[in-house]
Amino acid sequence: MSEKNEDMIVTPWKVSGEVDYDRLIEQFGTQPITENLLERIRKHTGEIHLQLRRRIFFSHRDLDWILDMYEAGKKFVLYTGRGPSGPVHIGHLVPWFFTKHLQDKFDAKLYFQMTDDEKFLMHPEFTLGKVIDLTYDNALDVIAVGFDPEKTFIISDVNHIKTLYKLAIRVAKHVTFSTVRAVFGFEESSNIGMIFFPAIQAVPCFIESMLTGENVPCLIPAAIDQDPYWRMTRDVAPKLGYYKPAQIHCKFMPGLGRGGKMSASMPETCIFTTDPPEVAERKVWNAFTGGKPTLKEQRLEGGDPSICTVFQYFSFFFEEDDKALKELEVRCRSGDIICGECKEKLAERVKRFLSEHQKRREKAKDVINDFFIDDKV
Amino acid sequence: MSEKNEDMIVTPWKVSGEVDYDRLIEQFGTQPITENLLERIRKHTGEIHLQLRRRIFFSHRDLDWILDMYEAGKKFVLYTGRGPSGPVHIGHLVPWFFTKHLQDKFDAKLYFQMTDDEKFLMHPEFTLGKVIDLTYDNALDVIAVGFDPEKTFIISDVNHIKTLYKLAIRVAKHVTFSTVRAVFGFEESSNIGMIFFPAIQAVPCFIESMLTGENVPCLIPAAIDQDPYWRMTRDVAPKLGYYKPAQIHCKFMPGLGRGGKMSASMPETCIFTTDPPEVAERKVWNAFTGGKPTLKEQRLEGGDPSICTVFQYFSFFFEEDDKALKELEVRCRSGDIICGECKEKLAERVKRFLSEHQKRREKAKDVINDFFIDDKV
Repeated sequence: MSEKNEDMIVTPWKVSGEVDYDRLIEQFGTQPITENLLERIRKHTGEIHLQLRRRIFFSHRDLDWILDMYEAGKKFVLYTGRGPSGPVHIGHLVPWFFTKHLQDKFDAKLYFQMTDDEKFLMHPEFTLGKVIDLTYDNALDVIAVGFDPEKTFIISDVNHIKTLYKLAIRVAKHVTFSTVRAVFGFEESSNIGMIFFPAIQAVPCFIESMLTGENVPCLIPAAIDQDPYWRMTRDVAPKLGYYKPAQIHCKFMPGLGRGGKMSASMPETCIFTTDPPEVAERKVWNAFTGGKPTLKEQRLEGGDPSICTVFQYFSFFFEEDDKALKELEVRCRSGDIICGECKEKLAERVKRFLSEHQKRREKAKDVINDFFIDDKV
Repeated sequence: MSEKNEDMIVTPWKVSGEVDYDRLIEQFGTQPITENLLERIRKHTGEIHLQLRRRIFFSHRDLDWILDMYEAGKKFVLYTGRGPSGPVHIGHLVPWFFTKHLQDKFDAKLYFQMTDDEKFLMHPEFTLGKVIDLTYDNALDVIAVGFDPEKTFIISDVNHIKTLYKLAIRVAKHVTFSTVRAVFGFEESSNIGMIFFPAIQAVPCFIESMLTGENVPCLIPAAIDQDPYWRMTRDVAPKLGYYKPAQIHCKFMPGLGRGGKMSASMPETCIFTTDPPEVAERKVWNAFTGGKPTLKEQRLEGGDPSICTVFQYFSFFFEEDDKALKELEVRCRSGDIICGECKEKLAERVKRFLSEHQKRREKAKDVINDFFIDDKV
C-alpha cells in the first residue's frame, strides 16, 4: 500500500479522499479493462463507447467470460441499481447511459434495483413513505435515460419483495454474520435489516435464471464502491447453481467543488436532473477549475485540466468528440482559452441536456408502470 | 435458581430436560394465571376452558390488560403460528383448539403464521419446495381445527412476504445484532436470514393495526418456548406506535415416551394427525405409564398418574370431564384399574378423534385458499 491516499475510503456507504483507481483494482482484486478487451467489444458494438474509451468504466470481473458466452450464443442480462436516498444527479446518470448502450448493442434485458429498503433501514429519519416516493421519483430519471420498456424491469425492494424473497433467503442461507461483518464492516450495533440486506442486493443477479429456469449470465455495470456486494454474491452463486455475476466498474463523477465524488449532500456542487436551467448554470459558473487566479497568469502559464471539474464534465459526458476534447485540453494548458469560455460552453450543454432530460422525465410519468417488475413477471 | 433441573433448556429451537414451569415464570418474568383472572375470563366465555382450568395455559403477559381493553369495547386479534418442519402431531393441535375457543368466545380475528422461511433457513437439507409443501400440508390441520374462515388469515412467510415486508423492516430497524444475540443466542456463524427472521415473526402482531390504520391489541396464545420473540417484539412495539402484544403461554404436551415434549423427531412417541388408526393405537399401547411392573404390584400399590403419559393425554385433551379425570386418578392410585384399561380407553378416543380430524382435514383441501392471507387482504 502506498503512503499516498491513506485517507482514501471506498465502501458502499462512503467514498472520500482522493480515489486512486489503480490501487482499487489491486485492493479489490479486479481486472483493468485492456485494449484487447476493447477490441473484442468493438466487434459487437461497432464503436467503443465514450465511457469505455476514456476509461470511465475502467475495471471488470469476468467481462471476457461474458463475451465468450455471448459469442457462443448465450445472451446475458444486465443488472444495475440505485439507492433512492434523494434526487438523482448527473453523476448517477452517467453509468446509466452506458448501461443503455449495452442494452441496445447486446439486446440485453436489464434488471434495475431500487434499494429503498436499505435506504429506509440506514437512515434513522427516513420513513417508508419517503423512500417509496423517492423510488418513484428516481425511476422517472431511469426511464428518461431511454431504456427499452420491453426489456427493462425496475424493482422496488419494498413493493416488489414478492419477486425477491425466495431468492433472498436462498442467498442468506449461505451467508454468515462473520462474512457480512468482514465484507461490509457491520457491527454489533448494526440493525438486523441492514445485516440481511446484502442478500436482497444479490437477488437481481439471479432473477432471470429463476424466472426462466435456465442459468443466465449477468453483467453488472456499476460504480466500484458496490464491489463488496458482488464479491459476496460471487461466493454464493455456485452454491445456488448459478453463474457468478460479472461486473464492469466505473469511476465516480466528480462534484463541481474541490475534489470528491458528486454528492447530493453538497447540493451546490451537484447538478440535479430537476434543477432549473438557471440553477444549473449558476453551479457551473461556481465550479472549481484548474485556472489561474488572474487572467494574466492564465494567458501566460495556462490552466491545469487534470484538476478542473469543468474539464471532467466534458470528459465524462458533455464532449462526445475526442478530438474536440483533446483540443480543449491543449488550448487550456497553453493559456489560449480561459475558464469563463469553458464554463459558458459547459453551461450551455448542461442546460440543453437538462431541458431534454426533463421533457423525457415528464413523459416517463405516463409509462412508469410499464417498467415496474411486479406488473410484468 | 434451584439445583434441580439445571439441564432444563427451553428456547424456540430446543426444549429438553424436565420442564419446571414455575421456574420458567420466574426466569422469563411472566405472570401466573390466577383464579382471579379465570373469574374475569369466565364472565366473557361462560365457562373456563379445559386448558385454562387445568393450567395447560399457565402463564401470561398483559392478559389482564387485554381484558381491560375488551371490557372497554376494544377488541383484540389473536396471533399464533407453526414452524412447518414436518407433519403436525397432537401436541401442536392442543393450543390451536384453545385458540379456536378464544376466537369463538371473543369474536376475534386470527393471524396464523407459517414460518416456512425460518424452517428453510434453519435446516441445511430443507429446500424451498419442501417447506412450501409442508406449509400447505400443515395448513390443512389448522383449518381442520375449525377456525372461522371469515376471521382467520393463514400466512406463509415465503409466499405472502408482500404483506409482511414493510412491517418487518420497520421492526428490523429497531433491533440490533447485539439484541438478537442476547435474546436468541445467535452467533458469528449464524446465517443472515436467521438473524433477520425475528423481525418477520414480530410482524403478525401489527398486521391488523397496519391494515386498519388503528392501534389494535393482539393476544398471542403459544407455547412458552416462543417467549423470546415476544420479549423482543414488546420492546419494539412502542417505537412503532403500536401496543405491546399480550401473551398467554402453554405447557408442552408430553410425548408418549419417558419424559420430554412431544417431538416429531421421535415418531414412535408422537401421534401424527395423519397416522392410520392402527398406528396410533400401537403408539398408545407402547406408551410410558406410571404403572407397576406386575399386575399384582399394581393392584397392591397402585400406579402413579403424575408420571404417566396416558394420564397426561386424558388431562391435556382426551378427557373433557373433570370428575371423570379425578376418578381415573383416584382409581389408578388405588390399584383399582390397570394400565391396559387406560390405554384401551385412550386408544379408542385417539382413534375417534383422528378419524374425525382426518375427515375435516380432507375437506380443508377444498377451502384452503379461503384462509391464505394474500387472497384476502
